Amino acid sequence: MTQDPLVVFTPSGKRGRFPVGTPVLTAARQLGVDLDSVCGGRGICSKCQITPGYGEFSKHGVTVAEGALSEWNAVEERYDQKRGLKEGRRLGCQALVHGDVVIDVPAESQVHRQVVRKAASTRVIEMDPASRLYYIEVEEPDMHEPTGDLERVARALAAQWDIPAVTMDFSVLGTLQTVLRKGAWKITVALNKHSAEATPQIIAAWPGLHEDGLFGLAIDLGSTTVAAHLTNLDTGAVVASSGIMNPQIRFGEDLMSRVSYAMMNPGGDGEMTRAVRLAIDALVQDISAEAGIDPALILETVFVCNPVMHHLLIGIDPVELGQAPFALATSEPLHLRAADLEITALPSASQIYILPCIAGHVGADAAAVALSEQPGKSEDLVLVVDVGTNAEILLGDTSRVLACSSPTGPAFEGAQISSGQRAAPGAIEAIRIDPETKEPRFRVIGCDKWSDEDGFWQATAQTGITGICGSGIIEAVAEMRIAGLMDDSGLIGSAEAAGTARCVPEGRTHAYLIHDASETGGPRITVTQGDIRAIQLAKSALYAGARLLMDEMNVEKVDRVVLAGAFGAHISAKHAMVLGMIPDVPLEKVTSAGNAAGTGARIALCNLAARREIEGTVRQITKVETAIEPRFQEHFVAANAIPHKTDPFPELSKIVTLPNVSFNTGSGGDSGGRRRRRRA
Amino acid sequence: MTQDPLVVFTPSGKRGRFPVGTPVLTAARQLGVDLDSVCGGRGICSKCQITPGYGEFSKHGVTVAEGALSEWNAVEERYDQKRGLKEGRRLGCQALVHGDVVIDVPAESQVHRQVVRKAASTRVIEMDPASRLYYIEVEEPDMHEPTGDLERVARALAAQWDIPAVTMDFSVLGTLQTVLRKGAWKITVALNKHSAEATPQIIAAWPGLHEDGLFGLAIDLGSTTVAAHLTNLDTGAVVASSGIMNPQIRFGEDLMSRVSYAMMNPGGDGEMTRAVRLAIDALVQDISAEAGIDPALILETVFVCNPVMHHLLIGIDPVELGQAPFALATSEPLHLRAADLEITALPSASQIYILPCIAGHVGADAAAVALSEQPGKSEDLVLVVDVGTNAEILLGDTSRVLACSSPTGPAFEGAQISSGQRAAPGAIEAIRIDPETKEPRFRVIGCDKWSDEDGFWQATAQTGITGICGSGIIEAVAEMRIAGLMDDSGLIGSAEAAGTARCVPEGRTHAYLIHDASETGGPRITVTQGDIRAIQLAKSALYAGARLLMDEMNVEKVDRVVLAGAFGAHISAKHAMVLGMIPDVPLEKVTSAGNAAGTGARIALCNLAARREIEGTVRQITKVETAIEPRFQEHFVAANAIPHKTDPFPELSKIVTLPNVSFNTGSGGDSGGRRRRRRA
Repeated sequence: MTQDPLVVFTPSGKRGRFPVGTPVLTAARQLGVDLDSVCGGRGICSKCQITPGYGEFSKHGVTVAEGALSEWNAVEERYDQKRGLKEGRRLGCQALVHGDVVIDVPAESQVHRQVVRKAASTRVIEMDPASRLYYIEVEEPDMHEPTGDLERVARALAAQWDIPAVTMDFSVLGTLQTVLRKGAWKITVALNKHSAEATPQIIAAWPGLHEDGLFGLAIDLGSTTVAAHLTNLDTGAVVASSGIMNPQIRFGEDLMSRVSYAMMNPGGDGEMTRAVRLAIDALVQDISAEAGIDPALILETVFVCNPVMHHLLIGIDPVELGQAPFALATSEPLHLRAADLEITALPSASQIYILPCIAGHVGADAAAVALSEQPGKSEDLVLVVDVGTNAEILLGDTSRVLACSSPTGPAFEGAQISSGQRAAPGAIEAIRIDPETKEPRFRVIGCDKWSDEDGFWQATAQTGITGICGSGIIEAVAEMRIAGLMDDSGLIGSAEAAGTARCVPEGRTHAYLIHDASETGGPRITVTQGDIRAIQLAKSALYAGARLLMDEMNVEKVDRVVLAGAFGAHISAKHAMVLGMIPDVPLEKVTSAGNAAGTGARIALCNLAARREIEGTVRQITKVETAIEPRFQEHFVAANAIPHKTDPFPELSKIVTLPNVSFNTGSGGDSGGRRRRRRA
Repeated sequence: MTQDPLVVFTPSGKRGRFPVGTPVLTAARQLGVDLDSVCGGRGICSKCQITPGYGEFSKHGVTVAEGALSEWNAVEERYDQKRGLKEGRRLGCQALVHGDVVIDVPAESQVHRQVVRKAASTRVIEMDPASRLYYIEVEEPDMHEPTGDLERVARALAAQWDIPAVTMDFSVLGTLQTVLRKGAWKITVALNKHSAEATPQIIAAWPGLHEDGLFGLAIDLGSTTVAAHLTNLDTGAVVASSGIMNPQIRFGEDLMSRVSYAMMNPGGDGEMTRAVRLAIDALVQDISAEAGIDPALILETVFVCNPVMHHLLIGIDPVELGQAPFALATSEPLHLRAADLEITALPSASQIYILPCIAGHVGADAAAVALSEQPGKSEDLVLVVDVGTNAEILLGDTSRVLACSSPTGPAFEGAQISSGQRAAPGAIEAIRIDPETKEPRFRVIGCDKWSDEDGFWQATAQTGITGICGSGIIEAVAEMRIAGLMDDSGLIGSAEAAGTARCVPEGRTHAYLIHDASETGGPRITVTQGDIRAIQLAKSALYAGARLLMDEMNVEKVDRVVLAGAFGAHISAKHAMVLGMIPDVPLEKVTSAGNAAGTGARIALCNLAARREIEGTVRQITKVETAIEPRFQEHFVAANAIPHKTDPFPELSKIVTLPNVSFNTGSGGDSGGRRRRRRA
């Protein structure tokens, strides 16, 4: 008696013997090999493409003969003519096993394919979204055995996909009869199963085989900006990214001023809720138009946001978040429908998942950062700082993770800065000041050249030099400190004291002139004493938050720092450290994670297990409340100096020597800069 | 060693020994005695009132001494002064067991108290609604152990009520923080648990102890009228009943004309959906105003309706119900929220339950009739006829139940009848015609006297005699047949042939004049030949439906008939049988069930197990489709004669002798009535 043919799948290595004539898809299913199929083996969806290997496979101990699979058949022929099959590919549901064979499952045929993030970290996302497509053929109604159309759809899912029970979103029920008849009883349904216990729910249905895919949105709802990534839920690819300003800014620039608005104006919370929902509606329309995708295909959205944005998004007055004990209405993850949030650009049944909040001041955005950066899996002690209007700070390693948030204000984002502007073409994003001549050179967004390089002025003629963005202001202030134009208290010297005519009087203080385009009608770009004060407040808050966590952890230093946030990627580690934004570490230990909150949202969008992971992690994070902690105030005051009043910065000292100048003329000191070498 | 005291509860008879000092409520809970409590034994809700018995109880073998319970305490004293405790009552949570005692639990202290329907049938409803109140005391938030308010509410329910997991309706989350603080962390929540598997969901929350109860609506959504009963979900009492016309009438009087409207007018289904939802909104406002109850307390609504009303209510185009194979979108029971149906007068989270449909022509209203009348539990063969614009017909006994619906049209409701009107004061509801003199006497709604009794005309002077309602037209036609004014083909005789001047010419046919108030500006009330034809169509449809079920059941007669429907209670059994609306049975075997569909809705509102019962029953009912059954047409034609062309009515013959007249002058017969005795 001859044995049944052996089938070996790669890359999984799974293997088994199957009777001659078994479809490759069937063999894959029986072995638990991850081979996709939407149509269930009917030869119409093409998701189950495989590549048979022929010849000698000593590793597997198999020799594959020419006739190991059945001949190319009419279904494959038709598909190839219509859509084109890659060289060497077969349809797994059509190719039948005739002899020993090695079958490779290419990445795009795997349901749980892995998507590697492009960012610095190498986190791999396995595709396992909450919603998937299923093609079914439904029995026609029989007058003599009356059953509802929905019941026959459920029967088809049970018989054809082994899904024993389903429910249907109420909004889909209204279109089901039309879809079934239009598809001649062959339809594709999108099934959402957001947890292991949840009964799968039909959240969309299309006539025939639905070939346009499913999409999801990862939305980072910040106090200042709302950023969205539109993601293909099949491949994990980001098909469009878009951002808009948070229209709630008109009610207050930072979180506490919005909470105040809600407190002072009856119905003010409702106004802010409507504003942000309308903005999200517009964002959905924009981003789907940009990607050329019908918004009806967007069936999943993940939100990350701080607690105040969280409550305003879901329609809860944030007043409790403005006063101790900062109680959240709920800190649990939320599963909602687009209709609950009145986001009309999405289908009513479109699923919304909002990450859990960590505490009244530490939101779902911090949870998303934790999901993306995984401090709890770090062997060394890592400080993750998500820089924004409100900074989320995480400190931890495998032993423990702490979290807090700190109200930095919008200065780091270029707001409240006299020449500040958003990161857009024409904005100064980098700057160097010569310590001898005190002359600046800079780079603007939209041009790779420095301002002292040939061709810079021609290249920027179009945009002009319009202002300074967040990363630019950090560098400007740090460079002023390095060049001795500003002392460690943050005071800018006079032209005389600082030794440059670029230090111009401005009222009773001074400003440093970076660029004057006023003759040609452009702006006069300076860093004023007020700008320095705003940056000092912001950086002190950030540093104090980090120090508070270090106290709680009982450490004096951290091993590495991750700068996250929309503009975290653009911050120069050296300049941030000169400013004293972050604790002293070797420069190479400062890395950037880009928009980690957005990445966390995207992970939660693509992978259900990640949602469970972060829901568990959040419970284990130790929350530290900055707002009522007396030591926060102490740390804040001490952090006002640049880089710091008392904390040593030994690693910084190895690479930068900060001049020891003082421009304080109030206590009888001379107006000239006194220069001393300073080594902490 | 002395034994612990013995506690015997009545009426349950449950007994057990408990340590001295055990609260009676605790003893009841441990024994599984049905003793209510909303506050969980804190002495504030007064739901756990009990009556201790003292003296000799030989039946239980117990002698109860004076000091068997602890002394009347301060909590009871305060409650008594504030609200008044009935003589002999104690609060079960305050009274402690000190010795052997017999404790009676009065009906109003039982959660699952039994409510006896007032209608003819003796069905008892056990109170077990899907939503109940729970009073809880919630931990205050702790800044150092941050948790959401909802999570602490869930913890309180787990600790204080042994409810391990709850969810909260999204709409309630927005008010939770305010309610908690207003109630100083003591709140009452309404928990909905609509099935054994469902996780309980918080659907409302009030500060402190909520003492205003919970209410539910049972709504019978008919083609012509919408009837609602507002029910106290604690006691089962109906606190208000109200009805309105279905505004969809303007789109078509009967079901098929509404389906046509949807077919012919794009968006027509949406118009009808909006119309009926607005009407329900108004009905909710009216009925709660009538009862003096805040609509926010209405947290459960049960709907029963035919399939077309069902689909239009939930927003599904009914077009498939207008053509074979009459496929429902879904026949399953539906659990929805008021917000899903856009019923804005109810809280968003208010729960909606719609009974399952039986088939494309046999709806949730028929299911409700089955739940109310339980033909499947009848030892003898019962025919249940729910008379309306569309008649629901059930035939069955313990062996099997069959169901169909029959399009009777609105004639039985007084529509399409020349002098027809709704059942309202001034409408003729009963009529007798003297077989000798051919003179009528009648009774109108709003007056108990017959028109030939003293005082009738004074009593009705206010309303006047305005028309004939449904039960009146049935009696009028039957009486005309008995008096020989109309032959068995339904033809009305001329004055000469019929022997009375009340038979007046009307075009080429005749009409019988019942009352002429035209001299005083009132109407001239007649039964025209057209009216007879409309009644014949309606009654033939009804009878043919019943006969079709009898064929399917393979029987020639039924044991009893139940007339249901809003006006079923008012139909005279004798007249219905003379008309041939219903098959021949002994007169005493015809009973009325009132609005059985409405009763079924009320049962499903008050008792969860009843929902499961009817969901199971519906699957076992054999559905018979009248619309495409050739025998239905045959039965319909044969039933056109009054009472019937071929079927004998032996029971009817025992009590009524119908004159054998013929007024057909077309076939050369003389114009005078030929009288023969007829015995079938």
